[in-house]
Amino acid sequence: MIFASDNWAGASQEVMDALAGAARTGGPAYGTDRLTALVEERFREIFEREVAVFLVASGTVANALALSAYARPGGFILAHRDAHILVDEAGAAEFFSGGNRVIGLEAVAGKIAPETLFQALQDSPEREVHHGQPVAVSLTQITEFGAAYRPEEIAALASVARTRGLAVHMDGARFAGAVAALGLPPADLTWRAGVDVLSFGGTKNGCLAAEAVVFFDPGHARDFAFARQRAGQGYSKNWFLAAQFSAYLEHDRWLGLARHANAMARRLADAIAASGTARLALRPDANEVFAVLQAATDERLRAAGAIYHPWAAKSLPAAMRPNAGEKLVRLVTSFQTNEAEVDRFAALLG
Amino acid sequence: MIFASDNWAGASQEVMDALAGAARTGGPAYGTDRLTALVEERFREIFEREVAVFLVASGTVANALALSAYARPGGFILAHRDAHILVDEAGAAEFFSGGNRVIGLEAVAGKIAPETLFQALQDSPEREVHHGQPVAVSLTQITEFGAAYRPEEIAALASVARTRGLAVHMDGARFAGAVAALGLPPADLTWRAGVDVLSFGGTKNGCLAAEAVVFFDPGHARDFAFARQRAGQGYSKNWFLAAQFSAYLEHDRWLGLARHANAMARRLADAIAASGTARLALRPDANEVFAVLQAATDERLRAAGAIYHPWAAKSLPAAMRPNAGEKLVRLVTSFQTNEAEVDRFAALLG
Amino acid sequence: MIFASDNWAGASQEVMDALAGAARTGGPAYGTDRLTALVEERFREIFEREVAVFLVASGTVANALALSAYARPGGFILAHRDAHILVDEAGAAEFFSGGNRVIGLEAVAGKIAPETLFQALQDSPEREVHHGQPVAVSLTQITEFGAAYRPEEIAALASVARTRGLAVHMDGARFAGAVAALGLPPADLTWRAGVDVLSFGGTKNGCLAAEAVVFFDPGHARDFAFARQRAGQGYSKNWFLAAQFSAYLEHDRWLGLARHANAMARRLADAIAASGTARLALRPDANEVFAVLQAATDERLRAAGAIYHPWAAKSLPAAMRPNAGEKLVRLVTSFQTNEAEVDRFAALLG
Amino acid sequence: MIFASDNWAGASQEVMDALAGAARTGGPAYGTDRLTALVEERFREIFEREVAVFLVASGTVANALALSAYARPGGFILAHRDAHILVDEAGAAEFFSGGNRVIGLEAVAGKIAPETLFQALQDSPEREVHHGQPVAVSLTQITEFGAAYRPEEIAALASVARTRGLAVHMDGARFAGAVAALGLPPADLTWRAGVDVLSFGGTKNGCLAAEAVVFFDPGHARDFAFARQRAGQGYSKNWFLAAQFSAYLEHDRWLGLARHANAMARRLADAIAASGTARLALRPDANEVFAVLQAATDERLRAAGAIYHPWAAKSLPAAMRPNAGEKLVRLVTSFQTNEAEVDRFAALLG
Repeated sequence: MIFASDNWAGASQEVMDALAGAARTGGPAYGTDRLTALVEERFREIFEREVAVFLVASGTVANALALSAYARPGGFILAHRDAHILVDEAGAAEFFSGGNRVIGLEAVAGKIAPETLFQALQDSPEREVHHGQPVAVSLTQITEFGAAYRPEEIAALASVARTRGLAVHMDGARFAGAVAALGLPPADLTWRAGVDVLSFGGTKNGCLAAEAVVFFDPGHARDFAFARQRAGQGYSKNWFLAAQFSAYLEHDRWLGLARHANAMARRLADAIAASGTARLALRPDANEVFAVLQAATDERLRAAGAIYHPWAAKSLPAAMRPNAGEKLVRLVTSFQTNEAEVDRFAALLG
Repeated sequence: MIFASDNWAGASQEVMDALAGAARTGGPAYGTDRLTALVEERFREIFEREVAVFLVASGTVANALALSAYARPGGFILAHRDAHILVDEAGAAEFFSGGNRVIGLEAVAGKIAPETLFQALQDSPEREVHHGQPVAVSLTQITEFGAAYRPEEIAALASVARTRGLAVHMDGARFAGAVAALGLPPADLTWRAGVDVLSFGGTKNGCLAAEAVVFFDPGHARDFAFARQRAGQGYSKNWFLAAQFSAYLEHDRWLGLARHANAMARRLADAIAASGTARLALRPDANEVFAVLQAATDERLRAAGAIYHPWAAKSLPAAMRPNAGEKLVRLVTSFQTNEAEVDRFAALLG
Repeated sequence: MIFASDNWAGASQEVMDALAGAARTGGPAYGTDRLTALVEERFREIFEREVAVFLVASGTVANALALSAYARPGGFILAHRDAHILVDEAGAAEFFSGGNRVIGLEAVAGKIAPETLFQALQDSPEREVHHGQPVAVSLTQITEFGAAYRPEEIAALASVARTRGLAVHMDGARFAGAVAALGLPPADLTWRAGVDVLSFGGTKNGCLAAEAVVFFDPGHARDFAFARQRAGQGYSKNWFLAAQFSAYLEHDRWLGLARHANAMARRLADAIAASGTARLALRPDANEVFAVLQAATDERLRAAGAIYHPWAAKSLPAAMRPNAGEKLVRLVTSFQTNEAEVDRFAALLG
Repeated sequence: MIFASDNWAGASQEVMDALAGAARTGGPAYGTDRLTALVEERFREIFEREVAVFLVASGTVANALALSAYARPGGFILAHRDAHILVDEAGAAEFFSGGNRVIGLEAVAGKIAPETLFQALQDSPEREVHHGQPVAVSLTQITEFGAAYRPEEIAALASVARTRGLAVHMDGARFAGAVAALGLPPADLTWRAGVDVLSFGGTKNGCLAAEAVVFFDPGHARDFAFARQRAGQGYSKNWFLAAQFSAYLEHDRWLGLARHANAMARRLADAIAASGTARLALRPDANEVFAVLQAATDERLRAAGAIYHPWAAKSLPAAMRPNAGEKLVRLVTSFQTNEAEVDRFAALLG
């Protein structure tokens, strides 16, 4: 009953097999190998267009390097107030961007409203040299509260962003979950809706440590190979990343793994909704379930070995927040979650 | 006949087995897992003392973060003129240190002489605010020209460094090769000789992508966990690094792998020395062989499928440089190199 | 009737005379001149103790460099949400600190409450590597809303800061106004209350462009001369800064100039309080008056040539905010403001 | 007999008068004043074209910010091995550029030969991600050894730079001296010869502290106002810089002052050449005289109160270096140097 995070999962068998295969021989260093080329080609197919792809080993560095490609003096980046880049990356975005600032915006269920972005830009007059200049907006897909942005929601944000020349970055650490949930082409959720650059996650959905920065805007990718090398993410055995992605992307395995995680989250959510001792704070779109547990239920679950994190309710609508004697918790499923552990959890809810 | 670099090798079977084992279950995120604790303990045994160890995935970031722990305003770092941090890391040391400069020193076979370091410090008067201040010296073990620093050589450099308060960093991407070659305790080659912080390499000697920053100077490790996270090297599945190291360090496997690579280099060097169409530019201490080939020999070897890199002769003593019609090349062996390919190469020398 | 800002004023006659005197001969470069030594001595007298003083030419750089002396990986700085370092310095604090973040705190009249600081620190668990670590709190004296922190208020904040090892920085762009207003020794408002480093302003109170960074904590001043030089603020003709300060500090001129500006602000505030067409939003402690004007009054004043800025009311208590048909404005007096222009303004209020 | 540096001089009377005039009233803050606009217009006349001009207070920051406008990940800047940006600015270029490296080139009399630049670029293969990428070449006019680049020399370097897309920066701390020496239009020495951005010096030739960054390449000036503000060089009383420049540029005063300094240097050089106890190391083009003094002469001059700096001979042709019993020294004249002190010096030579 491990629902602490999808990064507590191991790696999928196919990913490990691909890695073991590549490790038997090794190959040319620094991304000149066959697997890297194959993976790059695969990204073009997935996104139905030319893209500039760069593999890295962590989501933090994927986000920070992607955003740094748009950094400018006095620049700032707008993101959800609970965005990973703002609260979980030890200031990586600021560091790699030479001190550009990340500014948090309020949102419901993690989805920034176009009006909120518009207002934030209104509050930052153009060419006001003291205040700085907005350079990018970063959206998290799926959001910090488990919701999936729909194409038209992304497009609305992107069109506001365009009025001031902002880049649109998508933190897709859980992008697979959103594609699986919405059943839409990846292109519809990214460049067709106005996304310029995507952090495409692998680690949380079956890889060991593998993320891709995908530029739909090749102009800003020009210096990225240098930026990646300088960040210490230009691996000599780059095939260790490419091998993971080759198995992860083959036969739409990334979507299969995500569909499983999503299904487990739905099963969990249904059990919670049906129980008398817990309720859903939000309806999950993908693999993150936010629930309000009675204190006794929380204790019973933990005593039985369930692992999950308490959560701060700051960004939730008042109606969904825990009352006295209740706790807000986050439960995350993964490709490794199985029905038995969900059902055991459900049984414990009573 | 792949002698291009030891980073063209795959990964050792035991490392891959450990990784596969860990990947089956996964575990607690961000280094709170059992394997990480076990590896930290193992480093303490290897170095016979308390150390602060931080696992990262690339040698570039190990060096850059280690050095950045000693960065100061106006600071500069002294290193061999062909040091990896100076010519192969796209400016990572400068970037992570907030612009501290790396200054190249001349050396014979890559070994900086204490007199050279002393003179460089003399040329930088103390508290001379325009010129900046030296903050560290970085030694490469084994050196850029395949030589192993002996303890007394390191100690001599460290004692010069101490006169001006410089930290002593060791780029140990091939540290295993030096320990294997000299047959001395790792402690003798590091903290007992005055080294403050070591980049301990795994990638070039049997790991996929795994390096450790080992501080013998705990004061400067204080903020390193934050610096590593900010660099995007604080991995959620940190066990993917720990698993590699657990197998790599177990039963002195790291030394066994290095001894094999060194033996293959000796076999190769002996063949070259005995041939009539090539000669050694330097006697190798570990797994890098610098040789001067007659042009026809070079062509014959390449035609037969041997892979290796030409090398610039700038830092070599005049007597060892190639003459007209000759080429200086670097041949690197690895844990995967086998006798058959060395012997095939030897046979082609004629 | 210029009340736009105290940085619209010229420079005091005595400052210009000292500058002209120094400019006739020039002198040794880079702060080795007689005037620089004299000014350093004067700062020791003013603060009744040993201090490390560094002259710079702008307040932005004084703040950013002072804070950067306390920067650490993953670090963040707590300040009032309208602090100059947060909204008016184009990200200088982030830039000079290598990406440390400035986080805004709510406050009444710009004075951060100890409870607010305490809560912010509670929200940042110790050694929580993802979230980063607090490194400093920055207080503005006088505050962004014209209030003067009293020694016991500073001491209360400093004691909260100490519990987590934070440095206490004071942005004293208008420090003279606070000393003049409170009639207390500068030492009581700084180191005796727990301030570690002060940006001591000259520009807004009679100098051309001259600020001083005053360290009461010499350990953190160790590298400051290098940091200042690297920032391009180590002037060859450093006497151009020292000459300004020599006149500014002589015979407590800095306090005389501030007393005048404060008196003009009181005169202005009294006129506003007595008028029927405007009211004070806050009682001014020094030279900044925040007033709520009826729209017609605002128009009449501007038509008559009065210059001042509208102000955002976000941080004001609800009771003090403008109603429909009213405007919140900021009126700043300076050493150059004279009674006649205040009285002309008062007459226009009606 | 002060020949230590032209930055030991005071400021010209006209500059101080203009400053005093502006200081009497002050004016709108942050460069929205009348004087700033007037100075910008004057720069357009001087360079016979549209330019983007930004005033700053120090040469170090002028250079570092100008170069940072061309910085890129993994970037490096080529400059003379004794360039001010490399040896006298405490790493400012590296700091403001986010860690781009400055690499020193050999030269005769400080003039980089086109072949030297060409060879350095050859040594840096294109898109070689480990090594980094060249982004700019920085020329010093007049050079570190007192020589003036002629337009055709600049054009030859610029055409080599263009082959790899490098920007051409000119460190013109003593640009006035070069224009005065060559008697050519400033445009011929800058944009017509291929210069993209110029640090136009005022401080060493009659100003207190005033430099201008002049972009002939407006595309790269886009974010400069933000970069300057963030650097703490966006002065509230920007008129303190503009007032200096207004007098400095009026009636070609800057050239008049430089002509005087140059004439004093020629007088000094002639005396040295005619003496039996000293000789010229190089024929001066402007206001820096490099001379070789007999040790006894050196002592006699210093005993009589002459102030000047010894100089390192590393970059000088062998024939010009001091022999045993001789000393290489640098003698700098300024707008304040008078014939009497030169003649007194000459008399002491014997």
